[in-house]
Amino acid sequence: MSGKEKIMSGFFITLEGPDGSGKTTVGNKIAEKLTAENIAYIKTREPGGSPISEKLREVILGIGNEAMDPRTEVLLIAAARRQHVVETIRPALAENLVVLCDRFLDSSLAYQAGGRNLDMDEVLAINHYAVEDTMPDRTYYLDVPAEVGLERIAANKGREINRLDQEDIVYHQRVGRAYAEVMNRFPERFKRMDAMQAPDAIADAIIADLLTCLGRK
Amino acid sequence: MSGKEKIMSGFFITLEGPDGSGKTTVGNKIAEKLTAENIAYIKTREPGGSPISEKLREVILGIGNEAMDPRTEVLLIAAARRQHVVETIRPALAENLVVLCDRFLDSSLAYQAGGRNLDMDEVLAINHYAVEDTMPDRTYYLDVPAEVGLERIAANKGREINRLDQEDIVYHQRVGRAYAEVMNRFPERFKRMDAMQAPDAIADAIIADLLTCLGRK
Repeated sequence: MSGKEKIMSGFFITLEGPDGSGKTTVGNKIAEKLTAENIAYIKTREPGGSPISEKLREVILGIGNEAMDPRTEVLLIAAARRQHVVETIRPALAENLVVLCDRFLDSSLAYQAGGRNLDMDEVLAINHYAVEDTMPDRTYYLDVPAEVGLERIAANKGREINRLDQEDIVYHQRVGRAYAEVMNRFPERFKRMDAMQAPDAIADAIIADLLTCLGRK
Repeated sequence: MSGKEKIMSGFFITLEGPDGSGKTTVGNKIAEKLTAENIAYIKTREPGGSPISEKLREVILGIGNEAMDPRTEVLLIAAARRQHVVETIRPALAENLVVLCDRFLDSSLAYQAGGRNLDMDEVLAINHYAVEDTMPDRTYYLDVPAEVGLERIAANKGREINRLDQEDIVYHQRVGRAYAEVMNRFPERFKRMDAMQAPDAIADAIIADLLTCLGRK
């Protein structure tokens, strides 16, 4: 599935990072710049991204589902991911599109394995069952300290609070450490971006890297 | 739910078999007889059996979710099972109750691995992640040919049709063959019941076996 023929066979990029790292804003800017570059793409996000996956998103994020066991969360998010891959991501890659996805498998390694203190190899195995060979070609990690991310979220009054936002700073610090481990596991596809920069600057740097990956520069 | 004299330790029994094998009717009769024997129990069923699992049941069985990929189905049912184990089954076993469950992990091996042509070892691994050591002590397999089960269902006009009922006879024959393989894998806990008998006779035989397992006879 990985697009070694560059733009001719689709290219799968994911955005990762802690809450408040600016993935949504940066993702929107990347989308604008892809349009400006005449690169055909779809923009999607997890959990969700397909009709069945959106139904599962409601259960995953639903306030009132606090009794959810950590392993249930792993399996449920992997189920939503599988459906997203099959219904949305693979068809787009088959049409030679760039797929820009806000959160993917690495978020499970960071949030479920790291955040919930589960074994990362087991969480990875469940997720490999879900995605098979549909792995990102490139993953941009928007790096901010957990504290900064949480401050940004607290300052954003319009943002809707979901079940996963109810965790404390210790949880988010575990997530940050797990992301560091994930980057060490997959150095070939991860690119760390300093997310203390302005979103436009981050998006420009990502587009420059992407154009190189696509053989456009 | 039924509150009666406690037995010495929890005991987990599951009912398995093809659609139309009479699990629901036999399960109700077993419940009556457990009450008559003064054995405290809970009766539950999958998919479902806990608040979050029931929400997932709606997605699993929902008409309109025909686009569901086989691996999504495996992961989603495993997620619902995990929550059922944690919220319902383990607490009941910890209170020394008999847990009587209509369908459990073996149904995934039969319906998802067998019915959907997925690798049984992989489906088992996903399910072991979900249930850990909470495996049935005893599994009663209600044995009828797939054709007979489907005829019974067709004759039962009051029964609501769900997504999984829309499969053809070839699917159900694969399910039957997979069940045979599952029984070979777990001979120590499986007991095959001739489900061409009257439900009362099947329930009597199950109760007799159960009393032996519980050291009552």
